[in-house]
Amino acid sequence: MESKQTTGSLTQRMTIGDFLLRRLEEAGIRHLFGVPGDYNLALLQQLQDGGALEWVGNTGELTSSYAADGYARLNGLGALLVTNGVGALSALNGVAGSYAEHVPTICICGSIPLRSIDRGLGMHHTMADGNFDHFLRAYAPVTAAQVRITPRNAAVEIDRLILTAWREKLPVYMELPSDIAYLEIEVPAAPLVLAQQPSDPERLSSCIAAVAQRLAAATSPAILVDADADRFDVAPDLMELAQKLQAPVAVINAAKGVIDESFPYYAGIYAGKGSEPGVRETIESSDCVLAVGYRPIEVTTGDFTASLPAGTIHARGHAVDVGEDNYQAVTLKEVLRGVIDAVPQVTNRAPQPVAAVMPGAQADSSAKLTQAAYWQAIQGYLRPGDVVYVDNGTSFSILGLKLPPNCTFIGSINWGSIGYSVGALLGALTAAPERRHILLVGDGSFQVTAQELSTILRHDYKPVILLINNGGYTIERGYIGKTEPYNDVANWAYADLPKALHPGTTAQSFVVRTCGDLQDALETPNDNLVFVESIMDPCDAPAAITRSSNLGAELDYGPRGPQHREGLQLRSSTM
Amino acid sequence: MESKQTTGSLTQRMTIGDFLLRRLEEAGIRHLFGVPGDYNLALLQQLQDGGALEWVGNTGELTSSYAADGYARLNGLGALLVTNGVGALSALNGVAGSYAEHVPTICICGSIPLRSIDRGLGMHHTMADGNFDHFLRAYAPVTAAQVRITPRNAAVEIDRLILTAWREKLPVYMELPSDIAYLEIEVPAAPLVLAQQPSDPERLSSCIAAVAQRLAAATSPAILVDADADRFDVAPDLMELAQKLQAPVAVINAAKGVIDESFPYYAGIYAGKGSEPGVRETIESSDCVLAVGYRPIEVTTGDFTASLPAGTIHARGHAVDVGEDNYQAVTLKEVLRGVIDAVPQVTNRAPQPVAAVMPGAQADSSAKLTQAAYWQAIQGYLRPGDVVYVDNGTSFSILGLKLPPNCTFIGSINWGSIGYSVGALLGALTAAPERRHILLVGDGSFQVTAQELSTILRHDYKPVILLINNGGYTIERGYIGKTEPYNDVANWAYADLPKALHPGTTAQSFVVRTCGDLQDALETPNDNLVFVESIMDPCDAPAAITRSSNLGAELDYGPRGPQHREGLQLRSSTM
Repeated sequence: MESKQTTGSLTQRMTIGDFLLRRLEEAGIRHLFGVPGDYNLALLQQLQDGGALEWVGNTGELTSSYAADGYARLNGLGALLVTNGVGALSALNGVAGSYAEHVPTICICGSIPLRSIDRGLGMHHTMADGNFDHFLRAYAPVTAAQVRITPRNAAVEIDRLILTAWREKLPVYMELPSDIAYLEIEVPAAPLVLAQQPSDPERLSSCIAAVAQRLAAATSPAILVDADADRFDVAPDLMELAQKLQAPVAVINAAKGVIDESFPYYAGIYAGKGSEPGVRETIESSDCVLAVGYRPIEVTTGDFTASLPAGTIHARGHAVDVGEDNYQAVTLKEVLRGVIDAVPQVTNRAPQPVAAVMPGAQADSSAKLTQAAYWQAIQGYLRPGDVVYVDNGTSFSILGLKLPPNCTFIGSINWGSIGYSVGALLGALTAAPERRHILLVGDGSFQVTAQELSTILRHDYKPVILLINNGGYTIERGYIGKTEPYNDVANWAYADLPKALHPGTTAQSFVVRTCGDLQDALETPNDNLVFVESIMDPCDAPAAITRSSNLGAELDYGPRGPQHREGLQLRSSTM
Repeated sequence: MESKQTTGSLTQRMTIGDFLLRRLEEAGIRHLFGVPGDYNLALLQQLQDGGALEWVGNTGELTSSYAADGYARLNGLGALLVTNGVGALSALNGVAGSYAEHVPTICICGSIPLRSIDRGLGMHHTMADGNFDHFLRAYAPVTAAQVRITPRNAAVEIDRLILTAWREKLPVYMELPSDIAYLEIEVPAAPLVLAQQPSDPERLSSCIAAVAQRLAAATSPAILVDADADRFDVAPDLMELAQKLQAPVAVINAAKGVIDESFPYYAGIYAGKGSEPGVRETIESSDCVLAVGYRPIEVTTGDFTASLPAGTIHARGHAVDVGEDNYQAVTLKEVLRGVIDAVPQVTNRAPQPVAAVMPGAQADSSAKLTQAAYWQAIQGYLRPGDVVYVDNGTSFSILGLKLPPNCTFIGSINWGSIGYSVGALLGALTAAPERRHILLVGDGSFQVTAQELSTILRHDYKPVILLINNGGYTIERGYIGKTEPYNDVANWAYADLPKALHPGTTAQSFVVRTCGDLQDALETPNDNLVFVESIMDPCDAPAAITRSSNLGAELDYGPRGPQHREGLQLRSSTM
């Protein structure tokens, strides 16, 4: 690793593979998820020899992509390594999910050798049709940047892709041909610095002045937070601003937990007509809303019933819309820091207390477990600092619970890919094994990625897995097919899986049928992995879930759809 | 369903969903694989109400795509139904595999409503960025045709896509917006006819004459068969032609089993220097080779050591290359029928008997099971008419065994996606439940798609699953990483999975450690699903597999690669 001075900067010689691994490490990545394949083994050997990154092999690439996403949610950046074609395309859904959810991940594909591309040779894991760009093309719609690494572009492109992922909070895709990982190139000696381009000074000060002036002049300012506030790490700044303005902060459901729910100015979830009483009033009657990263979709807007006041300020990661003006070349963090400094401390607006979650009547412990009793028990089970995962389904009920302080909520509200949570759990466990991790998942979602439980057990992680076994896709029964067989899934002995997937495991499994069973299971010390299978009725769904599904059916199928046919739809009135 | 005469053809009115289902049925599809999602439930309800197609719900969309592929291998055409974005992209690897392997499947995606596209509304399962074409673009590189169905194009596009899939033997992708399945359009009353365009008469007769003249004039003609001979259903024609010419027929390994291996003129597998003695001579010394659908890649050519004689005739599905001439607008079937008629019956060339597979010494029944003993036992287990599946790994050893008459071999030699075989098994079981199905799979491959075993059990199918538990990706150990942890997989209690995934199952499970154990397991009557987990050493690999991996490492990593480092590679010499 000799260093030398060229064109004013220190460089050194390294193999391409070692340089890539070095850059990942410099970017704060300490673990690489993935599945080995002959085209990526050379880089894997370099990882093994280098010792700086740890390999976390998965059962399949879909879960690798989910794991990298979960890891990035806590770590700021994640990465996965797959093999040409088969591996890359298996990971595509998860990488696309990172795009939809604004999570920066780096998908590295060990690809066919440059030798074969140069010579036009057919290789396995390709279409054998002489075209080697198919998978770069497949990745183009779902990543912020794509490249095939070569010895001539590696030093530039590796940095470009890592920086693009981090700056845009979006995934990127690079193909590393298998025959170049051990070739030596000249690379910068200085470490990679993850930083945004600083704002243009004039644009920044003008933007700060415009935003601060409106917020300071408002009598009922409010802040509305979407997931980008987490991705661009401005949640503390937003709370500081709220404190200074004595202004309420609402989140949309994709940003559940981004604002500490114990924060005095936390108002709750805004979802148009789907909001809790008070939150809708807070946002829609405000005379100056600051919306951060707001991306309205049907499931975050109470089916498009959200209505932000005219003049709402829209702040995004790298731009701000204020009235007629659109400020570019400004960063969200710098804008917020400036606004916090510029607005005067308000002292006459007391926080509106959020309505406390009302505990329901305590169910008899021998009573058959219901969704209502289940979610009440989960509310009591949550502790400060938990990482809480939600998969699609009735588990969305977590959105209605109050998270204790310092919890992290990991979900995929926009993208909504069932099975995501199991892979994300592995990823975030890897990033923060010291925290308590609680997975809330239904049977249908769990079946997609169940085998990744074996990786969680293999690494001796000890999450709490709370699985609802209610025979199928209950959330879909509220669209149509209340009792149609297409919404049923096969019944598994879920609680037996830990010992089948990890013989000799010390995991503790419970099959729960009554409220008392559930309470017993939840009282188990979390010294080992705890797996609780709760059996509930297929047509027992929380009213909020059913209402949302019923509304969704109107949007999805329109006036000619079958949703109004007698008995075809699980209705909230059946609760 | 009133009919009326317009512009000379009978039409009728139907809903778009019913028309699509009708066309699938007319194309010979009786089962639809997939996963329900809110955007595809309307079509699913039409399927449920219509009663002509049967829904086979999967645990995830990746296996849906594999199942549709396996189904199409036996049925001629397969289909799957997924939901927008998340489902479509999860299926992409399997659909791409169908493209690589030339298998016609129809991927139908229940997509976001036209209403939302028209209004530019953000929806879940999208990027929420106002662009609704991302997934059509992701599918473009791996399908022969893609379309978003609308009321105005449905009658034309549905037929175009189904015909394109069937004629090209490639997959296609269509998005069906969720709000149009119940809208009524005017459609043709006549059934869809699956047929190739007939050949241009002059091109056909010229082509037949050119091919027949060369074959008849040759003293040592030979036929070389790739998988397209199966896809275009010309294996019987090729055997008839071989019989008339008294010419040997070799296959490449991607076409294992396409030519009945008991056929007197069957010569074996041609793979350049990787061929059995005699087969190489047969092909390379022939004075006229007719190659059918030949697509050379490294794993089918003995790492590019294959060398077809100058003047080889290349016949493909819709074109033939003979010397300087390229014949278009001819179909493979018509060309072969014409050539069979045109060549004289040869009577002076006796078939060369294929060297019989030598049974090895009978191992002591208490001896630890080895790969050598395993494959010898499998050879004895095969019966006429079996459907035999191979996944990537040491299970490729099946290529060296002799298939009894009327067997079907299902593998993915070009694409080589691990886990394919489990989904394909479900698909082909659905197409032909009356046959015996034998899955040959290793632990690493099985882990990718293991949960689809629950669907096989749910439908009470009774395949024989022969799983090798040897602790990881042994085929990769022959590239590099002989004992490196990245090639290890978690150890599962595989044989316990049937009862975990289908409580109360009558499946019979065996854990096999000795030759005697294996024999006992294989003697079990196949009245129920039989699951045999055979435990073998991670570094015990058949010589042919290791040799191929060692050669692959040279191609993959080149002269600077790590493969020659002491002890890093499982070598065939270690056998």
